[in-house]
Amino acid sequence: MIEENKKSTPYKPVSEMGEFKLIHHLTKNIKLKNKSTIKGVGDDAAVFVHDKKSVSLITCDFLIEGVHFNPRYVPMKHLGYKAAVVNFSDIYAMNGKPLQMVAGVAISSRYTVEAMEELYAGMILACERYGVDFVGGDTTSSPQGMQLSVTVVGEAVKDKVCYRSGAKPNDLICVSGDLGAAYAGLLVLQREEQTFLANPNHQPELEPYDYVIERQLKPESGRKTIELLSQNGIVPTSMIDVSDGLASELLHLSEQSKTGFRVFEGKIPIDPQTCSVAEEFKMAPLTLALNGGEDYELLFTVDIEQHEVLKSIPGISIIGHMISDTDGRYLITDADQAIELKAQGWTAF
Amino acid sequence: MIEENKKSTPYKPVSEMGEFKLIHHLTKNIKLKNKSTIKGVGDDAAVFVHDKKSVSLITCDFLIEGVHFNPRYVPMKHLGYKAAVVNFSDIYAMNGKPLQMVAGVAISSRYTVEAMEELYAGMILACERYGVDFVGGDTTSSPQGMQLSVTVVGEAVKDKVCYRSGAKPNDLICVSGDLGAAYAGLLVLQREEQTFLANPNHQPELEPYDYVIERQLKPESGRKTIELLSQNGIVPTSMIDVSDGLASELLHLSEQSKTGFRVFEGKIPIDPQTCSVAEEFKMAPLTLALNGGEDYELLFTVDIEQHEVLKSIPGISIIGHMISDTDGRYLITDADQAIELKAQGWTAF
Repeated sequence: MIEENKKSTPYKPVSEMGEFKLIHHLTKNIKLKNKSTIKGVGDDAAVFVHDKKSVSLITCDFLIEGVHFNPRYVPMKHLGYKAAVVNFSDIYAMNGKPLQMVAGVAISSRYTVEAMEELYAGMILACERYGVDFVGGDTTSSPQGMQLSVTVVGEAVKDKVCYRSGAKPNDLICVSGDLGAAYAGLLVLQREEQTFLANPNHQPELEPYDYVIERQLKPESGRKTIELLSQNGIVPTSMIDVSDGLASELLHLSEQSKTGFRVFEGKIPIDPQTCSVAEEFKMAPLTLALNGGEDYELLFTVDIEQHEVLKSIPGISIIGHMISDTDGRYLITDADQAIELKAQGWTAF
Repeated sequence: MIEENKKSTPYKPVSEMGEFKLIHHLTKNIKLKNKSTIKGVGDDAAVFVHDKKSVSLITCDFLIEGVHFNPRYVPMKHLGYKAAVVNFSDIYAMNGKPLQMVAGVAISSRYTVEAMEELYAGMILACERYGVDFVGGDTTSSPQGMQLSVTVVGEAVKDKVCYRSGAKPNDLICVSGDLGAAYAGLLVLQREEQTFLANPNHQPELEPYDYVIERQLKPESGRKTIELLSQNGIVPTSMIDVSDGLASELLHLSEQSKTGFRVFEGKIPIDPQTCSVAEEFKMAPLTLALNGGEDYELLFTVDIEQHEVLKSIPGISIIGHMISDTDGRYLITDADQAIELKAQGWTAF
């Protein structure tokens, strides 16, 4: 390609660069920081070693354009950040610490090198913030859209791993932060897209929605919660991250632990901005919290003997308690009605 | 859906089942066998612990419909098998042993539950044959086609990990098995597809191509080679798996090791069936070996002092030797011509 042509194209299609050069270009600034990482990008596999007293954890998540994200309103950098953080969240949900990450990226020819740079910048930023080493991956072409696959390994102290199956009757049910905000952010972004399509000159006024949009585009994971629990000597009896909505996660914990539960509407933490968005869209805030998804807060159970300690930890809400399996799975409303919760969480199909 | 309707559909669309049920359905028969696997499918992350004297290895690969496979001539079970084995191959290429695997599968609504069962059956079979535990993953929908992402972790003895960068001048260059067969198989399958499209009544006569088609559809990885080398006390100075063609892999090893090389046309192992397919397609067999890709043999270098031991190991060909970086990277033809090898391996874009 001659220089003239190059000047007239502001963005570089990935096809101009080739696979090996693109990978090198995107990964050349990655710095390894964890003592446990021995070799990162650039060989057949990455090499790491975990602490002798620990167990290793592994989790993976797929993000598919048109299913999990819409590039029209998700900036690439945010997408990269989120793809990393949702996996860290799964490691925290085991009471572990994420340490190494590999990412597979498949892109159609419509994506530019600049878009890839932004995507990688987001993944690298998330890794830096959470102390994770980005150690490898696969970059390839796709006939349509973008597919992102991220796998994270981490470690946990052997006798402190929190499974979904460890809850017992009388355990307190707790959740970090607040719920429903990420889905509220999605509602706002989807509305903006429709408005923009109808009138491209429309200037969005998004400030009143800053919190919920941030929760949708740039979720943070449960590190702070895990650290606070550890500092207070609390090991949850069971734990899961809230990716598909509170209802779905409560059912996962209780089914795997073979318990029932009672949670109280009035105890479920919902941010005022989430409530006002719900009102705008004529939805109940509780619906967003129960079925919204993508909050990436931690839902966990704690032995009732630790009630006093638990109450002193900021940012954690006690929303109910586990009961015997045969006593059912109920949400108690503010009007004191008991509503049975059944599977209706987000499903990809 | 009423019973009548159900009977009239022989295949079940994945949408009838929902995400959680489908995952449970596909993974319920997975048995964990490695002592190092503590918890498999069913929680936020899988849990494992590697041997105290070892390092852990991690690798991932993306397989995209329309780029890496064509479902018209790749049976789903073979696809699953191959998706697993190509990752095991990367772990063997580090002189390690694959132990745990996670897989992400994204599929459009055109795929049936039966197709998913076949895909999983292939992945599970590969895991059983290679002693790997299938410990988790993500199953989701895709607007178009299928995308498969497989990540494998393994372990290696700390001071026996083989990087791409360890070769030095005078080291012997070795390759396992034979090269070019997988690409020969692809040529035959692509021709059959065209013939079938032109005449759907055409009955293919594939027996003369059994070996090369098997190499394309159901590649095996380097476990046997790794075991033979270990039994003979050989630790390669550098190693890589042949996924993109011999030329590309030789350049990777020599660039990362900062060496030159001389390899000899007459020493490159090519199966007679590969040669006859090459002839049919009016191509040089050497081209298939150099640039064909997907052979998943191991290319490695060994200190010249181990020449005698090496010669006694079946299935390994010594094809040349490393030289000083400044002496260049050459293929010496049977006519004694020196051809400089430059990057031209398979590129995904």
